[in-house]
Amino acid sequence: MPQYYILFLFFLIFFSSSSHASVQDFCVADLKGPDGPAGYPCKSPANVTVSDFVFSGLAKGGNTTNIIQAAVTPAFVAQFPGVNGLGLSMARLDLAPGGVIPFHTHPGASEILVVTRGHITAGFVSSASTVYLETLKKGDVMVFPQGLLHFQVNAAKIHSSAFVSFSSASPGLQILDFALFANNLPSALVGQTTFLDLAQIKKLKGVLGGTG
Amino acid sequence: MPQYYILFLFFLIFFSSSSHASVQDFCVADLKGPDGPAGYPCKSPANVTVSDFVFSGLAKGGNTTNIIQAAVTPAFVAQFPGVNGLGLSMARLDLAPGGVIPFHTHPGASEILVVTRGHITAGFVSSASTVYLETLKKGDVMVFPQGLLHFQVNAAKIHSSAFVSFSSASPGLQILDFALFANNLPSALVGQTTFLDLAQIKKLKGVLGGTG
Amino acid sequence: MPQYYILFLFFLIFFSSSSHASVQDFCVADLKGPDGPAGYPCKSPANVTVSDFVFSGLAKGGNTTNIIQAAVTPAFVAQFPGVNGLGLSMARLDLAPGGVIPFHTHPGASEILVVTRGHITAGFVSSASTVYLETLKKGDVMVFPQGLLHFQVNAAKIHSSAFVSFSSASPGLQILDFALFANNLPSALVGQTTFLDLAQIKKLKGVLGGTG
Amino acid sequence: MPQYYILFLFFLIFFSSSSHASVQDFCVADLKGPDGPAGYPCKSPANVTVSDFVFSGLAKGGNTTNIIQAAVTPAFVAQFPGVNGLGLSMARLDLAPGGVIPFHTHPGASEILVVTRGHITAGFVSSASTVYLETLKKGDVMVFPQGLLHFQVNAAKIHSSAFVSFSSASPGLQILDFALFANNLPSALVGQTTFLDLAQIKKLKGVLGGTG
Amino acid sequence: MPQYYILFLFFLIFFSSSSHASVQDFCVADLKGPDGPAGYPCKSPANVTVSDFVFSGLAKGGNTTNIIQAAVTPAFVAQFPGVNGLGLSMARLDLAPGGVIPFHTHPGASEILVVTRGHITAGFVSSASTVYLETLKKGDVMVFPQGLLHFQVNAAKIHSSAFVSFSSASPGLQILDFALFANNLPSALVGQTTFLDLAQIKKLKGVLGGTG
Amino acid sequence: MPQYYILFLFFLIFFSSSSHASVQDFCVADLKGPDGPAGYPCKSPANVTVSDFVFSGLAKGGNTTNIIQAAVTPAFVAQFPGVNGLGLSMARLDLAPGGVIPFHTHPGASEILVVTRGHITAGFVSSASTVYLETLKKGDVMVFPQGLLHFQVNAAKIHSSAFVSFSSASPGLQILDFALFANNLPSALVGQTTFLDLAQIKKLKGVLGGTG
Repeated sequence: MPQYYILFLFFLIFFSSSSHASVQDFCVADLKGPDGPAGYPCKSPANVTVSDFVFSGLAKGGNTTNIIQAAVTPAFVAQFPGVNGLGLSMARLDLAPGGVIPFHTHPGASEILVVTRGHITAGFVSSASTVYLETLKKGDVMVFPQGLLHFQVNAAKIHSSAFVSFSSASPGLQILDFALFANNLPSALVGQTTFLDLAQIKKLKGVLGGTG
Repeated sequence: MPQYYILFLFFLIFFSSSSHASVQDFCVADLKGPDGPAGYPCKSPANVTVSDFVFSGLAKGGNTTNIIQAAVTPAFVAQFPGVNGLGLSMARLDLAPGGVIPFHTHPGASEILVVTRGHITAGFVSSASTVYLETLKKGDVMVFPQGLLHFQVNAAKIHSSAFVSFSSASPGLQILDFALFANNLPSALVGQTTFLDLAQIKKLKGVLGGTG
Repeated sequence: MPQYYILFLFFLIFFSSSSHASVQDFCVADLKGPDGPAGYPCKSPANVTVSDFVFSGLAKGGNTTNIIQAAVTPAFVAQFPGVNGLGLSMARLDLAPGGVIPFHTHPGASEILVVTRGHITAGFVSSASTVYLETLKKGDVMVFPQGLLHFQVNAAKIHSSAFVSFSSASPGLQILDFALFANNLPSALVGQTTFLDLAQIKKLKGVLGGTG
Repeated sequence: MPQYYILFLFFLIFFSSSSHASVQDFCVADLKGPDGPAGYPCKSPANVTVSDFVFSGLAKGGNTTNIIQAAVTPAFVAQFPGVNGLGLSMARLDLAPGGVIPFHTHPGASEILVVTRGHITAGFVSSASTVYLETLKKGDVMVFPQGLLHFQVNAAKIHSSAFVSFSSASPGLQILDFALFANNLPSALVGQTTFLDLAQIKKLKGVLGGTG
Repeated sequence: MPQYYILFLFFLIFFSSSSHASVQDFCVADLKGPDGPAGYPCKSPANVTVSDFVFSGLAKGGNTTNIIQAAVTPAFVAQFPGVNGLGLSMARLDLAPGGVIPFHTHPGASEILVVTRGHITAGFVSSASTVYLETLKKGDVMVFPQGLLHFQVNAAKIHSSAFVSFSSASPGLQILDFALFANNLPSALVGQTTFLDLAQIKKLKGVLGGTG
Repeated sequence: MPQYYILFLFFLIFFSSSSHASVQDFCVADLKGPDGPAGYPCKSPANVTVSDFVFSGLAKGGNTTNIIQAAVTPAFVAQFPGVNGLGLSMARLDLAPGGVIPFHTHPGASEILVVTRGHITAGFVSSASTVYLETLKKGDVMVFPQGLLHFQVNAAKIHSSAFVSFSSASPGLQILDFALFANNLPSALVGQTTFLDLAQIKKLKGVLGGTG
């Protein structure tokens, strides 16, 4: 038994001397720090608690009383600092009847989706312009390779939901319509680079708050 | 209009000359090929269809009529070849009342979990031996940093479920009890390297089919 | 001097015993082999010559007598096997007067461009929908972060050219118009997921050879 | 000869203009800075000396007069800032007769071991629960894949030693017994998640300073 | 139309809540911050403008009136903060008639070169000491695998130029002659470790400002 | 007890269904297969035994009866297939009195060295041409950042030895003298690109078997 006490002491000593090294088990984001190419600086491990690793913001769906009748609720590093440096993150999709998550990309991550309610028609398009399109039932899983244009549409008459996960703590989200129409990119330039008609461009710029 | 026809031809020519390059949009696993450090060889893109990117095996929970009253259903690259090379995968956890996913690690990935039914008590232990323990409600998300020991226990009187995602297409799964007791590692050596009593070791070896 | 002879022998012996290890200096693609998540299998080093590391296909610009009055000539791994595994590749842009490289993304790479003739107006849009737009002169360099929508337009009255480099041997290329209009994605679904008018969609599907 | 002087000037000019770029040859850790997912911020290169790249702390073995009769002396980034960002680190193992490095994992690194004195029985267990076990002689090398449970036991009647290297500057170290028994994880929960008997758990919690 | 207004509002809300997450589209270097293993901290996105992504320093060649009759003008992260974290950078080579970029390595990057004027003889040597040597014409591309010794020599009677790109924002540059002769490494040690004659060493040390 | 039997069955079923996924615990090289950018294809796990993870080739030093009076014995992936894909490897250095490991680089890895006998003077040179030089005693550790020129010299009157580890399974090895003098690179070109005198070049080409 006295021997055991020594064991106890030994380990205490060992751990105290190597305590710095164990920091890199995880790196909860200090969102006040400047981020870098690999993510945010780490919160001091002494201040980390289990609440840093738990996120309750996906328990409820976002508000779908908008024109797309849909909502995306992110749990990226900016909302959920515990994923910093771990190479993954999540989001929740909610689609009211008729709801649509319009064409978008995640510049820095692949995505995997699992339907938790209703039916969702999802699709992505490859560099070769091939369409991969499927209507998913509850429990079905679909994967969207990194950086490719994709969308999700409610295929049920009821509210549909899904959880999506990403291969990055900060996958990014570029919604096509906003990239094209919700800024000051001159309409003529949009026309030149998309072959869309000017009237179409101006109409959507009007809707999405773009100028030019 | 004839101009448009030229545009059409131009793009066709462009795409045929660069068709090889577009392969790396994705790399659906050819599971018959020998795998390598980065995953399996790619199935020929000509044979890839949307079904390669869709997996229905998580729609139903696994059979929980076993002693742990729980089941893990994986959608790793071996079950879902579409995730090959994309740096993510999924699994489904089902826990009957009293069910337990015992202590385990994923040697090659971090994990993010979202509860879809019931309540789950989950925890992980850091290198500094600190315990991060929480009882999660439906919709709660928890993250488990790479390689650390963790577990999940049903905290509800009903069946509980969760989806988990990983930061690798092949996260691995090392269940502690199986690593220690379900093989031919000599009992004396298990004792020396775990400080467990020999009787305890032999009892669990008996249960789990280990020898020696 | 006899000593030197021994040195000579020593190194020969040393190198023959370690000849396998030196393979990974480079990994020229064997394009006949199945590719994998990290690229193509390596051509046998014994068969590699300097011509595997040299590519002459960018010396001339592509044919710009098409409706976009522009051409992209790639030197990706499919055209230039020497870049396999090295994390970079190139392409050449040629824009006749009025020429346009329409909105596109590279799902797997950042891009850096240098103007070699004329003037080019280039822009990209961030996830926050901010436009970064500049007219570049000969010798100017611009960088386009990974996966973001961008375009290039000739801003000169003469033929303009540029070399672009990528942070991947296989950056991919997704041209927005082709993703939306050059395949069998049903027009109604395109409308739902882009907010474009059906007439606009059908017009561009007609031009680009899309159906549905 | 005056020409040479110009060469000299040329290079001086060249180097001063690119001096910042050369920083990333190495990134000696500034341990006072907040670390991030990729490691610590870099010490100013102007203050870096050769002593930052040299570590003498492994010259002597750790104290083995403890119950495991063994010691692990780390040269991780926390002890040896010069390895920051270089993707490797070292440690020294010392095992008195009867000494044991108990079951543990390195969550973020593979390990390679070379015996420098005595004999060491080492083993690791795969996800498939297969045991890979060998008694190593002086000069023998063994590799332990990332994240898997492994151990080392003195197999000689004399003091045995080894050097181990890791594929990370911060490999982490999770000792199984400490993860299970040296914290406040409730005994009942340990029992549920390990199938160990409560008496066994309480005994080891007593020894290792755990509570609950 | 009121519906559209709601759409507008929806997106505004969505984007403001996820604004942090979009930071990682890019990470323009704040060169005042301490760099880390993955690069510099990010400039606040609010202060980023298109000028951070544009670099005009390569429009003119460097001064070649020096003994090597050549100049290297870098656009690495230290000169061009916009490439921080994007895994690429550029430089411009200028070689007057007779100009030479002497043997050098980039410790952290592969390189791809395109000739824009004149003719350049370029070569690299593999670990197996095989030479890969070619005289490149305008428009020819050559790739130099990471870390290998290589050089470029003007093969034309006119000024020759090239653009080179790297697979890192901070590729490093180690010029062989400077590593050996432009510092205080004792001449005897240089002789021992290069087999060069002492007179040769002292001569070049004299030229390049080395001591010892 | 019958319950335990069910547990046993459960785990067997679970593991057989996920057996493919566990392959990626490790990827022992099948050296007959074509290698790729990430390493060699994996040997079938069914044929893997502990001997794949153990290497005895470093137990004895290499033959130092040669002009450099030194030997490098590698345990890279080509000699030790078990390290494939694990991001590390080893080698052994032996230096007889007067022995020298001449200037060299590892294009793809950082190196960490520990002296096991005698004294070794080791040094590396940074991109800024600064020399980091130290005479190491038994047990001292030194790290050499990726891709930089470095050397080791016996500083004792007795045989000295060291173990070195690398941050890659295939670090490569480019010995400066061999790159310059042991091939058919024309002497005039060597002179142009190194500033060495022709007589010096021809002398070393003669010694090392170079031509031209």
